[in-house]
Amino acid sequence: MAKDEQWKHEAAEARSAPGKMRRKEFEKELAKLQVELVRLQTWVQATGARVIVVFEGRDTAGKGGVISRITARTSPRVYRHVALPAPSEREKTQIFIQRYIAHFPAAGEIILFDRSWYNRAGIERVMGFVSDEEAERFLMLAPPVEREIVVKMGIILRKYFLDVSQDEQRRRFEARIKDPVKHWKLSPMDTESVRRWWDYTAAYRHMIEATHTPEAPWYIVPADDKRRARLNLIRHLLNSIPYKRVHIDLPEIPKAQPRPKGATERLGAGQPISNHY
Amino acid sequence: MAKDEQWKHEAAEARSAPGKMRRKEFEKELAKLQVELVRLQTWVQATGARVIVVFEGRDTAGKGGVISRITARTSPRVYRHVALPAPSEREKTQIFIQRYIAHFPAAGEIILFDRSWYNRAGIERVMGFVSDEEAERFLMLAPPVEREIVVKMGIILRKYFLDVSQDEQRRRFEARIKDPVKHWKLSPMDTESVRRWWDYTAAYRHMIEATHTPEAPWYIVPADDKRRARLNLIRHLLNSIPYKRVHIDLPEIPKAQPRPKGATERLGAGQPISNHY
Amino acid sequence: MAKDEQWKHEAAEARSAPGKMRRKEFEKELAKLQVELVRLQTWVQATGARVIVVFEGRDTAGKGGVISRITARTSPRVYRHVALPAPSEREKTQIFIQRYIAHFPAAGEIILFDRSWYNRAGIERVMGFVSDEEAERFLMLAPPVEREIVVKMGIILRKYFLDVSQDEQRRRFEARIKDPVKHWKLSPMDTESVRRWWDYTAAYRHMIEATHTPEAPWYIVPADDKRRARLNLIRHLLNSIPYKRVHIDLPEIPKAQPRPKGATERLGAGQPISNHY
Amino acid sequence: MAKDEQWKHEAAEARSAPGKMRRKEFEKELAKLQVELVRLQTWVQATGARVIVVFEGRDTAGKGGVISRITARTSPRVYRHVALPAPSEREKTQIFIQRYIAHFPAAGEIILFDRSWYNRAGIERVMGFVSDEEAERFLMLAPPVEREIVVKMGIILRKYFLDVSQDEQRRRFEARIKDPVKHWKLSPMDTESVRRWWDYTAAYRHMIEATHTPEAPWYIVPADDKRRARLNLIRHLLNSIPYKRVHIDLPEIPKAQPRPKGATERLGAGQPISNHY
Repeated sequence: MAKDEQWKHEAAEARSAPGKMRRKEFEKELAKLQVELVRLQTWVQATGARVIVVFEGRDTAGKGGVISRITARTSPRVYRHVALPAPSEREKTQIFIQRYIAHFPAAGEIILFDRSWYNRAGIERVMGFVSDEEAERFLMLAPPVEREIVVKMGIILRKYFLDVSQDEQRRRFEARIKDPVKHWKLSPMDTESVRRWWDYTAAYRHMIEATHTPEAPWYIVPADDKRRARLNLIRHLLNSIPYKRVHIDLPEIPKAQPRPKGATERLGAGQPISNHY
Repeated sequence: MAKDEQWKHEAAEARSAPGKMRRKEFEKELAKLQVELVRLQTWVQATGARVIVVFEGRDTAGKGGVISRITARTSPRVYRHVALPAPSEREKTQIFIQRYIAHFPAAGEIILFDRSWYNRAGIERVMGFVSDEEAERFLMLAPPVEREIVVKMGIILRKYFLDVSQDEQRRRFEARIKDPVKHWKLSPMDTESVRRWWDYTAAYRHMIEATHTPEAPWYIVPADDKRRARLNLIRHLLNSIPYKRVHIDLPEIPKAQPRPKGATERLGAGQPISNHY
Repeated sequence: MAKDEQWKHEAAEARSAPGKMRRKEFEKELAKLQVELVRLQTWVQATGARVIVVFEGRDTAGKGGVISRITARTSPRVYRHVALPAPSEREKTQIFIQRYIAHFPAAGEIILFDRSWYNRAGIERVMGFVSDEEAERFLMLAPPVEREIVVKMGIILRKYFLDVSQDEQRRRFEARIKDPVKHWKLSPMDTESVRRWWDYTAAYRHMIEATHTPEAPWYIVPADDKRRARLNLIRHLLNSIPYKRVHIDLPEIPKAQPRPKGATERLGAGQPISNHY
Repeated sequence: MAKDEQWKHEAAEARSAPGKMRRKEFEKELAKLQVELVRLQTWVQATGARVIVVFEGRDTAGKGGVISRITARTSPRVYRHVALPAPSEREKTQIFIQRYIAHFPAAGEIILFDRSWYNRAGIERVMGFVSDEEAERFLMLAPPVEREIVVKMGIILRKYFLDVSQDEQRRRFEARIKDPVKHWKLSPMDTESVRRWWDYTAAYRHMIEATHTPEAPWYIVPADDKRRARLNLIRHLLNSIPYKRVHIDLPEIPKAQPRPKGATERLGAGQPISNHY
């Protein structure tokens, strides 16, 4: 093997997976985990626990995909998907955590941050929206603030980095270009993420080194196989929280009130749509 | 057939469907419609059109289900799912449309209201949260306000009522009770919607009669077969808007910058999660 | 008198006042009106009335000044001062009333709009932020929307235009330049309002003509004498609303709990500031 | 002097003032300080500094009064008055600083908190809205969080406690009862603050002891003489921040565009209000 290809091999190894998982198997496993996600939900509500899950990773790494599997069967009042837009000029001058803290969990809530304050060390740094100095300042501040969140505030914090390879990212962008349904997802920012692969690599490596702390470690999720990545991440999240099964009192389905004389179910007006299917 | 069962027969007829649709067929048809929903999205963005879609119907009718199929492959910046919480004491005294108008579409947006201002004539009336007088006042105000929205503001407004039968609603509640993953969806309010079936019937009938206008008609969607209901509703929505295909310029995927000497893809820190799957 | 100066004379006449009012007299009269503003407040709270007051006028006309006199002794929960920032790009494409309706009164509230939706026909038109076509579209929409607000929603709506003369406006800008405390109020937009005096004149004249309706008339307040303008406007507002005196049950001031043995009022820590005055 | 009255004497001494200040003198001094507040404003804008000022104290201590003197001549975009309503049920379970952090300063802003996170150790504790345990937990958390704000975030933080005596508080409540304009300010919560004087005394003493730190000391402002209190507090604030005079480029007032032929200043419509004054 040529020396030049050594890194590729290493990277592949780190993300290696025994062949792509099949859909049927994936759905069967996912269904089991979703039962557990609902149990976690019940426990969080019963105990008033507060949870934050941070999802980071390059474009196409699959952050949105795993979040949508987590929220598919759970309550939007407990599992809250938060994807903030780019900061306004005023927000850019606020302390880094401020925009996010507004979305921090109340008792009984699990906040899923689809990208997070780490933007400042990733996309904002690589694209030059903040200076290197600002990015470094952020990296110095993040660990003590996260320690505060975890130790003092008692919030359960999990940080996941979905790790996709250069080849796989390119394949996913090519698939977006081939599939008209995905065209709207393509932006000039995306193509930049392909072009600046190595700048992002350096930025993320530095970010993780600087903010991987005992109180708030980074968990790296090999993400070249989307299905395995989703299952592994969800399973890890579930295993990392010591929730217990909580009994719910189920309501009984009551008898309907008696039908009033002459009443019919037919609606009196409105236009029935044609049944095409 | 006993006279007493006549209404049931009538209701069933109105919602009759030729056997439950199979999943495979459903997904094939849905995929086609989702391509069109993306085309509508592109057109709305290109023309700056503003669209509001109102989803109403009893508990378990399938409002959330059809909305999640619409948004599964579309952009959250264009198709926006809005499900407001119960109004605060202060909001209760504001004009009925105020809480909702804050979420009205800007140019290029499609707002999906999962329940809407019609709550005042449905759940709030039946459960006694507003007086009959207030509900009637609302029903008088809604048509002129909607006319303003459509005629003066130029907003495309569609109102769908998902119509489920008494037997089917009961079956769905029973299914929720049997499936632990759905337990969190059960609330005392739900069981009330079973008990007060006929009160709801009268309230919805009156609501639709009072607010079915030429500018903002109600479309009734038979909803006992969830899959058919979803497809029929989406197809109707697409057919009712005269969108055209709009060409998108696709970006080209650029070459990556050269790998810096000694660079590797390996992240320097972070804890790999174990690959269980 | 030269023909050329005729308009100036006419304008001055319309705003003529018998000599500047003296501060002492002003404060005496204002105090009386403030008692009435509090009575109006009590009535609005007791009856659940909803009131909107729109303040329009050129830069330096005194909108902020009269509002601060209204709110000086009243409750911020009833009299609410609303001065919206310039609209965002997204807001610009929403229907004109949307940003404002979010601030419409709940029962028992009086909203004071410091500038309003009429910006679109004033500053935004003159400065070219909207096209003439958009401004005209707005002027066509405003009357029916305001009719809806007044007739259907039952909101009490008052619209005041503070009318300042060209000479007085110039004097006020010159005073701002001479007074360092007012320097921060000076912006390039302000000097434009001096330069484009006649464009503004035409825009405001057209705006008032197009939106002076029986349901929502414009009241013109001569504003060259600030003190008289404030008193006259407040008096007009009070006279135009048929409020009545409402009795308030006053709490009695209770006896304090007995001093615990050994308790002292001294605070145990903290650094007393030096008493310079 | 009877032993029993010792504490009163001590308290009076701590707040002693050489006779009430006269209005004229007060206004002259205030005007000077307001010039400085504007200079501080310009400096904050020019340097992007971020400032938080916390105002605490019993009911009637004069928090609102001093804030309104600070903001009387300054820009609402720089000096921002923040008085949050009681927390919602959901907010009560969030971390204590969350509601407030949403209002933290961007660059170039001075936030004036009219009551603050310290409510939890004052009114909420005394009135039993939180348990003693929660109040103590808050008091343990506040110092490290404030240290973070000051040291890490680089925010200038000042905390003032306006200290009013029992006799003076009673006098002020009696004055409110005598003055109809002030009746709306009277609430059952107020009278409780009279009744529970000693509970508040103990709570505030403990609060200040627990949170008077080198990074965020409490400044105690004798407040029985309102005018002196205002001047002393503002002067202290100004002296504590090392601002410098910053030069502002003043715009020149331009010549107006020429009067178009036939143009008049008269507005074409609108109803002049009668000039009563």
